[in-house]
Amino acid sequence: MGANTFGKLFAITSFGESHGEAVGVVIDGCPANVEINIAFIQNELDRRRPGQSSITTQRKELDKIEVLSGIFDGRTTGAPIAIIVRNENQKSSDYNHLKDVFRPSHADFTYDKKYGHRDYRGGGRSSARETVARVIGGAVAKLILKEAGILINAYVSQVGNIKVATPYSKLDLSKIDSNNVRCPDGDIAKRMETLIKDIRKQGDTIGGKISCVIKGCVVGLGEPAFDKLHADLGKAMLSINAVKGFEIGSGFEAVEMKGSEHNDLFVNKDGQIKTTTNYSGGVQGGISNGMDIYFNVAFKPTATIMQKQASINKKGETVELDAKGRHDPCVVPRAVPIVEGMAAMVILDHLLRFKAYSK
Amino acid sequence: MGANTFGKLFAITSFGESHGEAVGVVIDGCPANVEINIAFIQNELDRRRPGQSSITTQRKELDKIEVLSGIFDGRTTGAPIAIIVRNENQKSSDYNHLKDVFRPSHADFTYDKKYGHRDYRGGGRSSARETVARVIGGAVAKLILKEAGILINAYVSQVGNIKVATPYSKLDLSKIDSNNVRCPDGDIAKRMETLIKDIRKQGDTIGGKISCVIKGCVVGLGEPAFDKLHADLGKAMLSINAVKGFEIGSGFEAVEMKGSEHNDLFVNKDGQIKTTTNYSGGVQGGISNGMDIYFNVAFKPTATIMQKQASINKKGETVELDAKGRHDPCVVPRAVPIVEGMAAMVILDHLLRFKAYSK
Amino acid sequence: MGANTFGKLFAITSFGESHGEAVGVVIDGCPANVEINIAFIQNELDRRRPGQSSITTQRKELDKIEVLSGIFDGRTTGAPIAIIVRNENQKSSDYNHLKDVFRPSHADFTYDKKYGHRDYRGGGRSSARETVARVIGGAVAKLILKEAGILINAYVSQVGNIKVATPYSKLDLSKIDSNNVRCPDGDIAKRMETLIKDIRKQGDTIGGKISCVIKGCVVGLGEPAFDKLHADLGKAMLSINAVKGFEIGSGFEAVEMKGSEHNDLFVNKDGQIKTTTNYSGGVQGGISNGMDIYFNVAFKPTATIMQKQASINKKGETVELDAKGRHDPCVVPRAVPIVEGMAAMVILDHLLRFKAYSK
Amino acid sequence: MGANTFGKLFAITSFGESHGEAVGVVIDGCPANVEINIAFIQNELDRRRPGQSSITTQRKELDKIEVLSGIFDGRTTGAPIAIIVRNENQKSSDYNHLKDVFRPSHADFTYDKKYGHRDYRGGGRSSARETVARVIGGAVAKLILKEAGILINAYVSQVGNIKVATPYSKLDLSKIDSNNVRCPDGDIAKRMETLIKDIRKQGDTIGGKISCVIKGCVVGLGEPAFDKLHADLGKAMLSINAVKGFEIGSGFEAVEMKGSEHNDLFVNKDGQIKTTTNYSGGVQGGISNGMDIYFNVAFKPTATIMQKQASINKKGETVELDAKGRHDPCVVPRAVPIVEGMAAMVILDHLLRFKAYSK
Repeated sequence: MGANTFGKLFAITSFGESHGEAVGVVIDGCPANVEINIAFIQNELDRRRPGQSSITTQRKELDKIEVLSGIFDGRTTGAPIAIIVRNENQKSSDYNHLKDVFRPSHADFTYDKKYGHRDYRGGGRSSARETVARVIGGAVAKLILKEAGILINAYVSQVGNIKVATPYSKLDLSKIDSNNVRCPDGDIAKRMETLIKDIRKQGDTIGGKISCVIKGCVVGLGEPAFDKLHADLGKAMLSINAVKGFEIGSGFEAVEMKGSEHNDLFVNKDGQIKTTTNYSGGVQGGISNGMDIYFNVAFKPTATIMQKQASINKKGETVELDAKGRHDPCVVPRAVPIVEGMAAMVILDHLLRFKAYSK
Repeated sequence: MGANTFGKLFAITSFGESHGEAVGVVIDGCPANVEINIAFIQNELDRRRPGQSSITTQRKELDKIEVLSGIFDGRTTGAPIAIIVRNENQKSSDYNHLKDVFRPSHADFTYDKKYGHRDYRGGGRSSARETVARVIGGAVAKLILKEAGILINAYVSQVGNIKVATPYSKLDLSKIDSNNVRCPDGDIAKRMETLIKDIRKQGDTIGGKISCVIKGCVVGLGEPAFDKLHADLGKAMLSINAVKGFEIGSGFEAVEMKGSEHNDLFVNKDGQIKTTTNYSGGVQGGISNGMDIYFNVAFKPTATIMQKQASINKKGETVELDAKGRHDPCVVPRAVPIVEGMAAMVILDHLLRFKAYSK
Repeated sequence: MGANTFGKLFAITSFGESHGEAVGVVIDGCPANVEINIAFIQNELDRRRPGQSSITTQRKELDKIEVLSGIFDGRTTGAPIAIIVRNENQKSSDYNHLKDVFRPSHADFTYDKKYGHRDYRGGGRSSARETVARVIGGAVAKLILKEAGILINAYVSQVGNIKVATPYSKLDLSKIDSNNVRCPDGDIAKRMETLIKDIRKQGDTIGGKISCVIKGCVVGLGEPAFDKLHADLGKAMLSINAVKGFEIGSGFEAVEMKGSEHNDLFVNKDGQIKTTTNYSGGVQGGISNGMDIYFNVAFKPTATIMQKQASINKKGETVELDAKGRHDPCVVPRAVPIVEGMAAMVILDHLLRFKAYSK
Repeated sequence: MGANTFGKLFAITSFGESHGEAVGVVIDGCPANVEINIAFIQNELDRRRPGQSSITTQRKELDKIEVLSGIFDGRTTGAPIAIIVRNENQKSSDYNHLKDVFRPSHADFTYDKKYGHRDYRGGGRSSARETVARVIGGAVAKLILKEAGILINAYVSQVGNIKVATPYSKLDLSKIDSNNVRCPDGDIAKRMETLIKDIRKQGDTIGGKISCVIKGCVVGLGEPAFDKLHADLGKAMLSINAVKGFEIGSGFEAVEMKGSEHNDLFVNKDGQIKTTTNYSGGVQGGISNGMDIYFNVAFKPTATIMQKQASINKKGETVELDAKGRHDPCVVPRAVPIVEGMAAMVILDHLLRFKAYSK
């Protein structure tokens, strides 16, 4: 399979460039007879949409989905579901000056060397616009998981040095979308929003962190050796543009912990086996243990800044870059549905794998 | 392909349980005509071997490799290379009392629920003994990468709260194996060793961190969308037993950074395009940019501790666990060759993929 | 990967139903910097198009390709190439009476049982319209193979009991498209055309055979064990609608042959190693040997006939079927570009795999 | 995944050379808790074993299986099952004279060109000894299928020009193993045996055909587009050494048939939907329809003959070959369990895939 396909039994194939005709996705392996709520998919995409609030890029893109196949009379048929989103409002001319220039910490240089020929307009294939495919695929996965009682919520837990101190279990996750930042702690959200606006005024950008919680997952998802559930979640997250790190459960904090602290003791709660703590993050030996699965994803600051920067062009000459275009000062608010979507696809894929081997 | 196979063009299939007949690996997709230095493979395995020093488990296992296929007259033939290591010195009776018990933060519970039938002896398939397959596969990959000028070094950068402050570029990586901890900073290594011994005396265990550096990687490895180079590295690392987190380049520190700080500026160094800083960690847009690739891997403390713990048995009854067996107080010293091996296989796989599309 | 993706390094994902919005393909793994001749792709599709001649179905479909991604300034970028063809001229109402009926030797029954919900209009996903994706993918593959000196030609070698007796090596393959049947032997072609017209008048359909020749293939394509070159060619062909058999080289005739007859003796022809005969069909031990690769593909008669037939509906009641719609009396003339396209993709995929392991 | 792995959910990885240490298989994706009858696996292997009767090669190999992993207390654990068979009774010196020679219609030439370095002893990896892996994997698959009520029987239906005229449905398939040829028609079997013995006396070899019948398959196995059930069966068969053709149901006879003859009419038999004829061979639209699945496989005559043949050596010089070693005059009697085994693995793989998507 190609490098633009993700998943084993529930598999999406992503295509499209930022300033090409369309971006889109083929969802292959969706069970038949699932009712598809198009409005829900569109809503998920709207959560990712540029121009949705005062702290995102001001590019206006409607991002209206168009279903080409796989859904008949409102339900899936088991055939591949192809959905595209036409590109609009591109200002390709914004990018003409970048044709031969390698922007710092972008993919211009690596694409140029790898392929020798690239669609430089708006980043082309390296644009985060590619994540439209992931949000659509993720939305379909969520619809199926919801029927199975599995719920996935991601939220912004840190922007720069402003972080949510409260553990996820004490947060009201229903409030995630109640503010522009997508942080369920309203006070922290306000401070984050202020910081993002300040950073934008400086012509700068800032990093952030997203935390994700998966509730209701059955025991048994994930495979022991290479396809450990958290390994597949990690790959999914690290494949999102701008992600630099992933940790599950105790994560990097585990480095300083003792076994006697870190071990999650089993208890019998009314016939259900639970653990008293959950440093494991809901996964043991690579397999879900029925506790909440939670993980963190680190995002770097957007590479495009509104400041002059020195760089190099194709000829190896030093050039001065002056950014144009409209960009996000911080990517995490719009990345929330992407994280949720990728997580949903990993969980669904493993759920199907699990079913394959069950009696 | 099954869940015990890893890689697309250079693919290993891992098999074997801790207390079964043997553990082993099939390496499929190894280029032909590569000279195989068996002593090197054995040496890599010896770096992983239990009982190698005073700070590892005292189980003695010779772990002698036995080549079954794929190598003829000292060179690869392009056929699959099968290598096994017979299990010896198992004290299966050590585990009889664990037959129906779920040890905390082990895979006993999840395996039991997923499969209904498990080889409980020594953890069976969930034992870190499975990583023998990875070290062997990684050793073969290293031999090929070395010819291509690509070198991979991992080292212990933190044990508990004792950490290496010096950046990798200032360390002498040739000293990694000069001490039992596999930390190239001798003073820090001594403090780590002391800590590990103290922890063992307490009947406890401690977490740790491994840092890995890949030098000499050509520009162009990795795929833009899902198979980003660091996404595949991340999956590889997260699939190792006890790993809880992965970060590349700036990693989680990127969360608090500004774009103006984080951007790696391109410069022309004698005709070669380099970056002045390397927060990207050698990967941009998912593709290697020719700079050093470096990343960190977080390991939790060993779950088996020499202290009494409460747990649950198969019937859901509370039981008291009293650990037996011989275990590592800290996994990272022996995990160094595993991290290197997994990294080597990812890089080689992408190198082969790269060659497939090159003119 | 999903069941609608084909290929390992050059991989297509097919989507779309006969009477849905569009059929299409995502081509993933196309090398960068390949000049794409859109007119050539359109021409290949025209060879498959319904209504192209007096012996095909009279449905008129323009089948105009629309490129959504992956091609920039006329050349590939290494990004996935998405191409769609809008469905037009569907008369879905022709199929309303088939909603609950299982047509004999169609996929209605099996789809209904497998999925529980199907797009019955025009066969939906089971329609041969799906092969549009294959012809487009195959056309791109052909462009690349042509640069590598590899040429693929298929032709109709039998319709009913009228067969081409001349071996392919004595035929002028440039004449394949000189008649409606796509048979390079003009006299035989005329007799085939007459037969097809007679069959149509009877409201009946007839089977046929396509032969395919691949010239210029380098030595070394194909893998020894499961991915033998002819095994992958066989799967490719058998995955085309209506195909019932595949044979390479001597094929089923080998059953009655002796080793002393069948063995292809090696000779040195001016420094090149060739074989005096080619019963192997250009593949030995699963690997191309540099001789012509040739194979036959058997197609059954179209299942839709213009005669009354008894059948069963969803309730299990006997019903009488009276075919409507416009169908091919014989599928092979339009299947020629499909066979070529599938062959091209298999060869290209193996060419890329070959390159991956070459020094 | 590598080229020596076959299957998506039930996947085997094959390794080993004819005159190396061992041949073997890793079976990955075997459901847990399946009782494994080792004697049955050994018996299947004995059906493939050289030296089993007067009409096979007289090499004596015990082919005793050795289980390395994945089975505990007689049942599968869900972990990969590794099984090896040590090579014995090799007379490698028989092959020294072949080191630099390309035997006609063998893989010597293609391996040499592809890999540059090959294990020439006994054909090395290209030897049919590789099929030991397939028979073992197939035996495990059969055990699981039997529990699901699916039975697979293959038999020799033709040797040279002696063929079984009776359709499989009129044969007593329980008699397949009652004679050395593995043909359930006793009279025909005798004639085949005589022919094989005559051919051997001539120092020659002869081709043959195997027919296979799968009974009890549920409706719904197979995927519509590329992974059609018969496409996967076809690939499986064509990947067996010496196979030149595959046909399902009507096969190549369909070429001369009319739709009105070929269509299988549906009927309601006591609430079960069946077809009156079965030209489809139990597969419609790529999906099993509940009728018997049956197909034919064409095998070429063994390439090694006991006659002098001209050939070429590595230097391109003409040499005269004088065969040594002990070979089968006809491969089909020993290929019966291989055909059954490959079929079993394809069916089981699709059964698992089917379950993944079922409610």
